[in-house]
Amino acid sequence: MTGKEEIPGVLIETEKSQEIAITRVRIINEDGEKALGKPKGYYVTLEVPRLREKDPKLTEEVSKNLAEELKFMINLPVESTVLVIGLGNWNVTPDSLGPKVVERLIVTKHLVELIPERFSPRNGIRPVCALAPGVLGITGIETGEIIKGVVERVKPELIIVIDALASRSLERISTTIQISDSGIHPGSGVGNRRMGITQKGMGVPVIAIGVPTVVDAATVASDTLEMLIAEFERQAKPGSEFYKMLQTLNREEKYQLIREVLSPFVGELVVTPKEIDSLIENISKTLSGGLNLALHPGISYEEVSTFLQ
Amino acid sequence: MTGKEEIPGVLIETEKSQEIAITRVRIINEDGEKALGKPKGYYVTLEVPRLREKDPKLTEEVSKNLAEELKFMINLPVESTVLVIGLGNWNVTPDSLGPKVVERLIVTKHLVELIPERFSPRNGIRPVCALAPGVLGITGIETGEIIKGVVERVKPELIIVIDALASRSLERISTTIQISDSGIHPGSGVGNRRMGITQKGMGVPVIAIGVPTVVDAATVASDTLEMLIAEFERQAKPGSEFYKMLQTLNREEKYQLIREVLSPFVGELVVTPKEIDSLIENISKTLSGGLNLALHPGISYEEVSTFLQ
Amino acid sequence: MTGKEEIPGVLIETEKSQEIAITRVRIINEDGEKALGKPKGYYVTLEVPRLREKDPKLTEEVSKNLAEELKFMINLPVESTVLVIGLGNWNVTPDSLGPKVVERLIVTKHLVELIPERFSPRNGIRPVCALAPGVLGITGIETGEIIKGVVERVKPELIIVIDALASRSLERISTTIQISDSGIHPGSGVGNRRMGITQKGMGVPVIAIGVPTVVDAATVASDTLEMLIAEFERQAKPGSEFYKMLQTLNREEKYQLIREVLSPFVGELVVTPKEIDSLIENISKTLSGGLNLALHPGISYEEVSTFLQ
Amino acid sequence: MTGKEEIPGVLIETEKSQEIAITRVRIINEDGEKALGKPKGYYVTLEVPRLREKDPKLTEEVSKNLAEELKFMINLPVESTVLVIGLGNWNVTPDSLGPKVVERLIVTKHLVELIPERFSPRNGIRPVCALAPGVLGITGIETGEIIKGVVERVKPELIIVIDALASRSLERISTTIQISDSGIHPGSGVGNRRMGITQKGMGVPVIAIGVPTVVDAATVASDTLEMLIAEFERQAKPGSEFYKMLQTLNREEKYQLIREVLSPFVGELVVTPKEIDSLIENISKTLSGGLNLALHPGISYEEVSTFLQ
Repeated sequence: MTGKEEIPGVLIETEKSQEIAITRVRIINEDGEKALGKPKGYYVTLEVPRLREKDPKLTEEVSKNLAEELKFMINLPVESTVLVIGLGNWNVTPDSLGPKVVERLIVTKHLVELIPERFSPRNGIRPVCALAPGVLGITGIETGEIIKGVVERVKPELIIVIDALASRSLERISTTIQISDSGIHPGSGVGNRRMGITQKGMGVPVIAIGVPTVVDAATVASDTLEMLIAEFERQAKPGSEFYKMLQTLNREEKYQLIREVLSPFVGELVVTPKEIDSLIENISKTLSGGLNLALHPGISYEEVSTFLQ
Repeated sequence: MTGKEEIPGVLIETEKSQEIAITRVRIINEDGEKALGKPKGYYVTLEVPRLREKDPKLTEEVSKNLAEELKFMINLPVESTVLVIGLGNWNVTPDSLGPKVVERLIVTKHLVELIPERFSPRNGIRPVCALAPGVLGITGIETGEIIKGVVERVKPELIIVIDALASRSLERISTTIQISDSGIHPGSGVGNRRMGITQKGMGVPVIAIGVPTVVDAATVASDTLEMLIAEFERQAKPGSEFYKMLQTLNREEKYQLIREVLSPFVGELVVTPKEIDSLIENISKTLSGGLNLALHPGISYEEVSTFLQ
Repeated sequence: MTGKEEIPGVLIETEKSQEIAITRVRIINEDGEKALGKPKGYYVTLEVPRLREKDPKLTEEVSKNLAEELKFMINLPVESTVLVIGLGNWNVTPDSLGPKVVERLIVTKHLVELIPERFSPRNGIRPVCALAPGVLGITGIETGEIIKGVVERVKPELIIVIDALASRSLERISTTIQISDSGIHPGSGVGNRRMGITQKGMGVPVIAIGVPTVVDAATVASDTLEMLIAEFERQAKPGSEFYKMLQTLNREEKYQLIREVLSPFVGELVVTPKEIDSLIENISKTLSGGLNLALHPGISYEEVSTFLQ
Repeated sequence: MTGKEEIPGVLIETEKSQEIAITRVRIINEDGEKALGKPKGYYVTLEVPRLREKDPKLTEEVSKNLAEELKFMINLPVESTVLVIGLGNWNVTPDSLGPKVVERLIVTKHLVELIPERFSPRNGIRPVCALAPGVLGITGIETGEIIKGVVERVKPELIIVIDALASRSLERISTTIQISDSGIHPGSGVGNRRMGITQKGMGVPVIAIGVPTVVDAATVASDTLEMLIAEFERQAKPGSEFYKMLQTLNREEKYQLIREVLSPFVGELVVTPKEIDSLIENISKTLSGGLNLALHPGISYEEVSTFLQ
């Protein structure tokens, strides 16, 4: 990676087109881990401000970019089996992204085994299998246990996990695709997943793909407060008590203060776009498009898009 | 109505059980209209803090209370035809309450006409018909026009309209049922309905039933700010500039200020409980239960609950 | 029409490509009505044996052919408003074709009125509106009454009605698209519609589009019997009593005999492909594709296909 | 079992109420296996002719009877973990019974572990977990492999498998519940499952619950032919050639003959009630009701029915 190491232990590279900004971050040592608060690994973010819109041209462009990033990270011969896991609860719209992506995947492991003359790595078809294991409240089983059990039987060379994320930032909601090779860590999902899914736990490399679909209500309040103070500061004299008090608090403390004040009301409230149902459809098409292209080098975008519908 | 007239032109009556608080408000003249900012009419609110929970006993109790309030307002012989309209967009979860209620209604107009020996007002079965007309973006037709057209053919004696509401209050979300005989006014629904559905427009009395299912994101921020200031005031010296400035603004101005600050980000964002899918199911059962009991005096709650499932 | 009049009062024209056979029939007088057992009018059938398969190229070809046939029949300037009606019950998979087609229509009447600078007949955008009125058991209102009421308010120049049909022929199921300008006649739909929707009833021309999605079980038995007898005849001596008896019955009598024998068991049984859910999705995309192209001359197939997804 | 051994190696016991006929069959040795064409084991059939109707009283009665039969077969202390598997494809309505049942189960394994003070075998709550693994075409993995993997991690004491069946008999469709302790055998499901799920394969006892939801089209034709011949025989002289030929064929040969004649047309056609969507809902409520009662002795039918909705 050619990016500069401006933060110690972190390599950063950016690329920008009209619609998509790609940031590639490699955390190479403990200094980098401390600086960014994340484990060592490779992190790619695709920011697509217009991703919320239903534009087939943009869907195609984002799918193709996503495919390129994934191909680089997958880095396995086409013979290697990949297991794709769609995390989340299909009964909760903003948490249903993972299962929806899995539904549109071109699943081929059984076909490569049963009809090798038509479906074969020689024709660019990789053995791909997939599972939407549900959530703890639906199965009574830790999701990681289900995946681990299936991994032990199927023995894939790679796991790719898709999840809907809860974001701390309003702007990221439904506009950002996050990929990393450090797996899924507990508590990042919409549905408070409690178990990580990582190479260490699974015994197989894990690539995680996430898209923020909700922001918790306290974050919205907190963000607004920040913006309001900035606005107030811009307009006027910042010498006030309230302002001083707020200045003494860092972002996390303010967030906690707001959570406390809000807690009797917001409980499980989240902020989500009103049209979340159609957003989830759109984004799941984009993600499955990218995955299908990255996994099966022998299939074109036109063929892939049949499965996206 | 026996309530006291503490606000000029307004009669208020309240009733409270362990689970449900009922407020009945009658606006009797222009003084009352000005004081409450609503047209003359009769307004009933059922507040049920535990309505978000899935408790069949509570569903039954709320349905029965709702039925009593509705019976009082309907006040028509069982021979009179009632048309129930489920407003909203079935593809947008928080806006799908109306269509979901209509799906669980005991619809009988055709049966009363075709099999009068089994379905008849003499047995307490009222001729009831129902329609979920969709929204402007789906049909291309003003919803009021569709309803008006059907009213002119069917000639019901009463219209009951069900709608999901956007609320300004976090606490009301999915815990409050609002009923009135003044019809539906534009812009109150989740989906920005543009046309009113009132006795004047339809030529037939209109009862409206609404439940708040979303709060807009600016409201959350605004509410939080209020609470934060109150908290700040309680804890500390209120003499600051920021505080003084905020004090000079009324609630509406603060809300507008926040909207402005947030606008590039929040756009169409709404706050809604994460588990909105199952909440809408629950509340639609409660409402259709109440409606079925109120409309068909000859049908028991046990029989009604078959249709609720 | 250039077809030959081989049946008195009937003009027939056929056209065939590799995938699609088109038959155009014009019944011009009472002789023709008697001969074919249908009212005067223009009837087009598209037979597409591979229509059950999920092939995007074929979807495009059929949509474009359907659009051509529809354009010829619509024959109205692009300024004229068209109302599309999706008949059927969205809760009964084989009967949900009409509502599914309506969901994918490019509905524009409101846009042409509200944003004429972007949506205008001058740009090839026709004012189109649409409704899925539900069925008698859901609304309690005759479907024809709902349509009539809406027609009287909206005053379209043409009505297009989409319906799932019950067929007498196994081969036609999900492979045939039937279009006519004589409207919809009672009892032809999957759900036993009881009312016709014709120019006479509505005061506006009506084009009907139907696709067979089920065959009743007695038909399957009856067809099998025919085939078995043919096979038996081919193999062996046809002199038997059973055979003789069967020969004395015409097709209709045999069908009735079978219905009688089967009646305690088959009741409401229908024959439908197991994968009916995905078939209905596919065919609704094909039909809405054709409709969108035919209605909006300014929109290309690529733009249309965005709405198909 | 007190039933008489009229068939060698088979014990049969029957019980009948107004609505439900229960048949209990125990195949005790190879003679029995040969006579009935099934492996040794215990087979219970509940025949409920009115099961297709939506009657909450009947749902309750059938659920309670099913629970009694299951309790007898489960025969494990309430501390023992049970894993319930819902086989089938949730995207194919007649094949979606298993996943639908699982969705309504009271799943408790995680609660018993996390909140033992509220959820505990001491209060009659069994640790129950559940999975709808999907079908081969969706996952690319043999369903048995997924189950085996999960079983190895979760180590349940018993597996209960739910499946929609393809029946050879019109009368059984949606009216019969079949239970056995010999597991699921390949090819009996609607979706041509290819792998058995048995105690031998899983290393844990397996109880299978099945309900026929479709009949293949050749069966309908074949059944009709049988009935037609019976009718013909009753009315008339059976001496004909056709009749003689048919008599020389046994049921299986006739079925095969019909399959051959029909094959170009029927392919994947199945016979299913038109209202299959609501039937599957109903039956899944009945089954999950029975399962919840049988698995959790501390939960009443009223509490269970909350989860059924």
